[in-house]
Amino acid sequence: MGLEKAVVKPHERLAAALAPELEAVNALIRERMSSKHAPRIPEVTAHLVEAGGKRLRPMLTLAAAKACGYEGPYHIHLASTVEFIHTATLLHDDVVDESAQRRGRPTANLLWDNKSSVLVGDYLFARAFQLMTDADNMRVLQILSNASATIAEGEVLQLTAAQDLKTDESVYLQVVRGKTAALFSAATEVGGVLAEADERVVKALFDYGDALGISFQIVDDLLDYWGSDQTGKNVGDDFRERKLTLPVIKAVAKADDEERAFWVRTIEKGKQEDGDLAHAIALLNKHDALEETRAVALEWADKAKAALSAVPQGEITGMLSDIADYVVARLR
Amino acid sequence: MGLEKAVVKPHERLAAALAPELEAVNALIRERMSSKHAPRIPEVTAHLVEAGGKRLRPMLTLAAAKACGYEGPYHIHLASTVEFIHTATLLHDDVVDESAQRRGRPTANLLWDNKSSVLVGDYLFARAFQLMTDADNMRVLQILSNASATIAEGEVLQLTAAQDLKTDESVYLQVVRGKTAALFSAATEVGGVLAEADERVVKALFDYGDALGISFQIVDDLLDYWGSDQTGKNVGDDFRERKLTLPVIKAVAKADDEERAFWVRTIEKGKQEDGDLAHAIALLNKHDALEETRAVALEWADKAKAALSAVPQGEITGMLSDIADYVVARLR
Repeated sequence: MGLEKAVVKPHERLAAALAPELEAVNALIRERMSSKHAPRIPEVTAHLVEAGGKRLRPMLTLAAAKACGYEGPYHIHLASTVEFIHTATLLHDDVVDESAQRRGRPTANLLWDNKSSVLVGDYLFARAFQLMTDADNMRVLQILSNASATIAEGEVLQLTAAQDLKTDESVYLQVVRGKTAALFSAATEVGGVLAEADERVVKALFDYGDALGISFQIVDDLLDYWGSDQTGKNVGDDFRERKLTLPVIKAVAKADDEERAFWVRTIEKGKQEDGDLAHAIALLNKHDALEETRAVALEWADKAKAALSAVPQGEITGMLSDIADYVVARLR
Repeated sequence: MGLEKAVVKPHERLAAALAPELEAVNALIRERMSSKHAPRIPEVTAHLVEAGGKRLRPMLTLAAAKACGYEGPYHIHLASTVEFIHTATLLHDDVVDESAQRRGRPTANLLWDNKSSVLVGDYLFARAFQLMTDADNMRVLQILSNASATIAEGEVLQLTAAQDLKTDESVYLQVVRGKTAALFSAATEVGGVLAEADERVVKALFDYGDALGISFQIVDDLLDYWGSDQTGKNVGDDFRERKLTLPVIKAVAKADDEERAFWVRTIEKGKQEDGDLAHAIALLNKHDALEETRAVALEWADKAKAALSAVPQGEITGMLSDIADYVVARLR
């Protein structure tokens, strides 16, 4: 079961359909990441913002607003807000994880220092809230501040849950909702709120973003054991960092005593030796943990697509559906 | 010129006058620092929030609103917001400064780890924005998000400016405005905005907070060379951390070649030896740098008091004036 490069990339089609809006988002991001007094801020931010991320989250806001017929200017501000929040969390994540690489380049904490990553992240977070106030919509502010709190809560929960074998699928889901899905669902929800869509539609957009985000993160966690060089992920990173993700949770649930001792040693105690990663993958395969995790990711992708039935249909909504397929297509 | 314990503590009188409001603030802080999923969050937060800080910043918001005749409930939310922003910046500052002590207790980054300090700080920051939206006042949100951006900008500026002997008094003032005065002035300004005070009064409250914050930070920086054990500060911390503060900036401006070489070695290059702190203090005294810095702090305290003339007079406003005196009275 290898991973092949998908031929069709629906997020690229969406980016083409939203090209003028995305250009406006990029211009606004460049404008607002500047700093009169502290040139280090745009340096650090540009390193990350211009590193060729797919701008998936801001595209979700633009797409949701457009699908609901929004014609004003503020989806640009909210999409930029979402990207700023995302960038701020990446800067802080890399400090927390002590990462050396992101998107194939050295991380900001390595190129500058942890201090700069912490403080520039704070700056971007504050800038995100400034940008939000431009839209003059209190409900949007509530949604995005709630999402920010949920993100931080998910990350803190991960700190304590990740190396604890008692962590079960429900705690894992909470972590994933926090660290990934909360920003996806807020991104789509605020698009609908800004367009003054029906509550039913707003709820559907939230559900789409939530399910897409969960699917996205599960696939990410799965590729950490299943990936190849083509995915840009290093197989085994999560294992080495002792992060208890869904594949391992499923294998631990079926472990016999000897296997359990292996997981205690490698994940809980962090005493890893040569050959442990290969043995871990063998255990995941033995208990069908990778296949079962893949099935969960597919379920969430289906939920995401199903939610879209309540959203006005059209070209953009079709592309959002294709994106849900694409996220799990990385697992072919 | 020794430092004596002041007999009159006007912030304690203000706390007494605002006792019911402060109790409501403390209750709201305890409620909002909780987390359903991540118990580490209230642990870390309580360590800092309950460490016996003076609650000066939230008191400023309460006092400003009351001085302007505000009778609604939301000054409690905004005061709590201000304290959350302050607490979040303290958590991140201690990571950035690699501090081991704050308010006479071990720092959170030491008791838990840097990861927890970064992420719990993010959580409190997000919670602060949630709290703000309760007041349903877009201008208040703008003021506090602007202040948050200015704080982070000031901290980043300090990273690059602190060890650079080219840093002059105007850059120092920018750093101080960012790291300290921005939250003081936002705290007082939002009190006036919430009370729907005249623009002239709102501006005066901003000016008071700005000048008070600048005075406060200059005194803090001065006590680092002038303090005694009674102040709770360790003399020489800034020197050891190579922070270029106003006393040193003034001494550097008057330095001869040999003295300049001393500052380059100790501050720019960070090569410090036994006896360097004593020599630094001798140079500060030689050039009257401590006295001149004290004069600047007094000037800003006077500006703070002068601004209050445009604010409705009464018991609370009188106490705000006394607080400006008290800040510099620490330097007697």
